[in-house]
Amino acid sequence: MKGTRVPAGTAAGVTPIISIVGKSDSGKTTLIEKLVPELTRRGYVVGTIKHDAHKFDIDHPGKDSWRHKQAGAAVTVISSPEKAAIVKNVDRELTLDEIAVAYMTDVDIVLTEGFKRESKPKIEVLANGDSELISPVNEVFLAAGSTAVDVGRPKVGRDDISAVADAIESQFPKIRADAPGGVLLVVDGKPIALNGIMKAMVSNTIGGLVSSLKGVNNPDKVEVKLWGRRDRG
Amino acid sequence: MKGTRVPAGTAAGVTPIISIVGKSDSGKTTLIEKLVPELTRRGYVVGTIKHDAHKFDIDHPGKDSWRHKQAGAAVTVISSPEKAAIVKNVDRELTLDEIAVAYMTDVDIVLTEGFKRESKPKIEVLANGDSELISPVNEVFLAAGSTAVDVGRPKVGRDDISAVADAIESQFPKIRADAPGGVLLVVDGKPIALNGIMKAMVSNTIGGLVSSLKGVNNPDKVEVKLWGRRDRG
Repeated sequence: MKGTRVPAGTAAGVTPIISIVGKSDSGKTTLIEKLVPELTRRGYVVGTIKHDAHKFDIDHPGKDSWRHKQAGAAVTVISSPEKAAIVKNVDRELTLDEIAVAYMTDVDIVLTEGFKRESKPKIEVLANGDSELISPVNEVFLAAGSTAVDVGRPKVGRDDISAVADAIESQFPKIRADAPGGVLLVVDGKPIALNGIMKAMVSNTIGGLVSSLKGVNNPDKVEVKLWGRRDRG
Repeated sequence: MKGTRVPAGTAAGVTPIISIVGKSDSGKTTLIEKLVPELTRRGYVVGTIKHDAHKFDIDHPGKDSWRHKQAGAAVTVISSPEKAAIVKNVDRELTLDEIAVAYMTDVDIVLTEGFKRESKPKIEVLANGDSELISPVNEVFLAAGSTAVDVGRPKVGRDDISAVADAIESQFPKIRADAPGGVLLVVDGKPIALNGIMKAMVSNTIGGLVSSLKGVNNPDKVEVKLWGRRDRG
């Protein structure tokens, strides 16, 4: 793992998550809209997460996949050569970690719009005239806004995308999601930080089991899921 | 594994997939629309998959999540307390197995609309007047249609949803996705069938490693991902 650095607050093997927070209409979506191509240009593969309190539909009413979901499918997938879309029922809102381990393991960095209540590292967008952060100050590594007021954290202009991307790059050095030697362990939806010894142990044990299987040669990606280990009443 | 039976063509731990095929306008969507609630009523948790050759959008143009994706995010997730929607770029169309292992491990059965070229067990819907199957006859376990012609396979009326569901239930006895002792091994996107010994070995090895971790007690669900094991040129 020479040369890589895992930022505080992220478990090894888990994609770093940065929350873009701020009051409504402060410009969060616009910042993300500009940051995604800038980070992509710098070599990151970017994922985004948006909370939606309202009902949303996949596809358009009346279309086939919409009819599947309306009929009561727990999950509906629409698959094309360029995109896959998945809509899934949940019994409560997923946490950012749950979303990341389920859907974001092949991106290098995740930007969330909102989610101020989860304590991920944050960039707070300040609307004109704002003089205070809405987030706990220790969670904010950058404020982005035009206000001249001191908010107690490093600050750049809200439109200075290059400076925002610089701050992200220095806080979250690019660790390619597909870099060799990746190990991710998730227990009951939560990513578990592994030290080097445990990482090697998990990797070697499973690698050994898998390579003993007929027809499996030098695999690139191995996933194991175990479930129902607990006795249910 | 006493009392469970894994149908031919499905790997242990992998959700059974049934393809509903037929000419266009034969009534595939309508059949699925009626089957989903019927199978749900019988206790199955159902997932569906639909191919879409056309471009499709998540959400509506101009909305925040749509703007994220348009800006170039490789994955965008919309999360609400009832649903999660994921839109993901792919570099080629995913196979049904890839979709199932990534997104369908917590449903009991998957219905696909179309996908006649993949050799999953099939129900072929016959339009009025059809006298021949479009699918290889050995892949079709049921024909659903009003034609009186003999197509060489068991046949029920296209609107006799109860008979269609009976045929599914007898071919794919309900194995709850969350039944105790589940083990799924996926290598380079393909589910690997494990015999009882390998299954126990994988389960015990990983279970042992995990239970040795501090703060982990009697977990219900464990996932391990390893990647980048191959030297890349």
